[in-house]
Amino acid sequence: MTASRTARAPSAFARVRRLADRGAYDRAAIDAVLDAATLCTIAHVVEGRPVATPTFHWRVGDRVYWHGSVASRMLRTNAVGGEVCLTVTVFDGWVLARSAFNHTANYRSVLCFGRPELVTDPAEKTRLLRAFTDHWFPGRWGALRPINRKELGATSVLSLPLDEASAKIRSGGADDPVRDLDWPVWAGVVPVNQKLGRPQPEPGLKRGLRRPRVVPPGRVPKAR
Amino acid sequence: MTASRTARAPSAFARVRRLADRGAYDRAAIDAVLDAATLCTIAHVVEGRPVATPTFHWRVGDRVYWHGSVASRMLRTNAVGGEVCLTVTVFDGWVLARSAFNHTANYRSVLCFGRPELVTDPAEKTRLLRAFTDHWFPGRWGALRPINRKELGATSVLSLPLDEASAKIRSGGADDPVRDLDWPVWAGVVPVNQKLGRPQPEPGLKRGLRRPRVVPPGRVPKAR
Repeated sequence: MTASRTARAPSAFARVRRLADRGAYDRAAIDAVLDAATLCTIAHVVEGRPVATPTFHWRVGDRVYWHGSVASRMLRTNAVGGEVCLTVTVFDGWVLARSAFNHTANYRSVLCFGRPELVTDPAEKTRLLRAFTDHWFPGRWGALRPINRKELGATSVLSLPLDEASAKIRSGGADDPVRDLDWPVWAGVVPVNQKLGRPQPEPGLKRGLRRPRVVPPGRVPKAR
Repeated sequence: MTASRTARAPSAFARVRRLADRGAYDRAAIDAVLDAATLCTIAHVVEGRPVATPTFHWRVGDRVYWHGSVASRMLRTNAVGGEVCLTVTVFDGWVLARSAFNHTANYRSVLCFGRPELVTDPAEKTRLLRAFTDHWFPGRWGALRPINRKELGATSVLSLPLDEASAKIRSGGADDPVRDLDWPVWAGVVPVNQKLGRPQPEPGLKRGLRRPRVVPPGRVPKAR
């Protein structure tokens, strides 16, 4: 377990119910999970029905952001101010026990509840999109063909405060009861990691351009 | 693009709206994404608010399943028969373009809508839990300490038919407009793959037990 369990749940709704000892409410734990995950789902209610759409998120300070086309059904719905649940999960591996019942997984997840706000100021939008780009590709924004007014206008950026959020984190080995320990089957952890593959340049890319620096997703932050 | 685009959306709700050319409705495409992904989110409406909880899913035939403790708030809510949206996403890598605007990602996602059903027959539950275990760890179920009645009773298994589902798949390189092609920045794909790490046996594990076979998550199925 990497997260402090000292902080309290910010609301009854955000409180982790099942396996509450895995719950974490301190912002450092929440931020670390959000920053390690590439994708989230944004769940919202459309015509009374739940819809959860995958998209990329990023965090700047006390808010988490996502973006997309102004034509997107999800973003138009989000912009109206209905409640959403932003969920991220990083899968860290399988935990194999002696019984099926005690099998589990190591993971880090965050749920964040609230009403999203639309970012309208073009300078603020630019700053935020730059933060997203540079989070995964440090320094890349400054090397790109600059964003223009039309592109900025075609992009919606939404934000959610992190004040109703919780993390759930599971790490470590199997929890078999003592009576199962002699069962003759392999038990332990099989880690799963996200690895960057070899970059595949676009056909016709000019020679001599430096390969981008890319931050591997899913990394566990160094112990604080 | 790996999926056939010949099938039609099963409902207006499940139809892919944004970037509709990435939508796929044929079952082979949907099944392949569900089978490659470890985790889903189950989005449902609780007291009028959207909640999306991460959990493991697995598919058997025409249904997708998830499980958990009978004490789980999510599973108890699901069992009442309210609508859910099951979402899975496999992240396959970054697509780096010459402009921020044209950056994108390769991914495979599925959304499946419907009202879950509780599996109540113990023999059916056992068969389904075995299918889940053996999907990721082929042959492991038969080597485990057998599941007992108490464990089976403490486990809820829920299912959702796949008849209101759609997939969205993006693959391939950057789509820069011709006017950007000479911008002097690296462009191309940086794949991200899920890799199994070295198995970490439980402390005190007996020597001579065979390491489990584990299927790597996220694999793209061989071309059909």
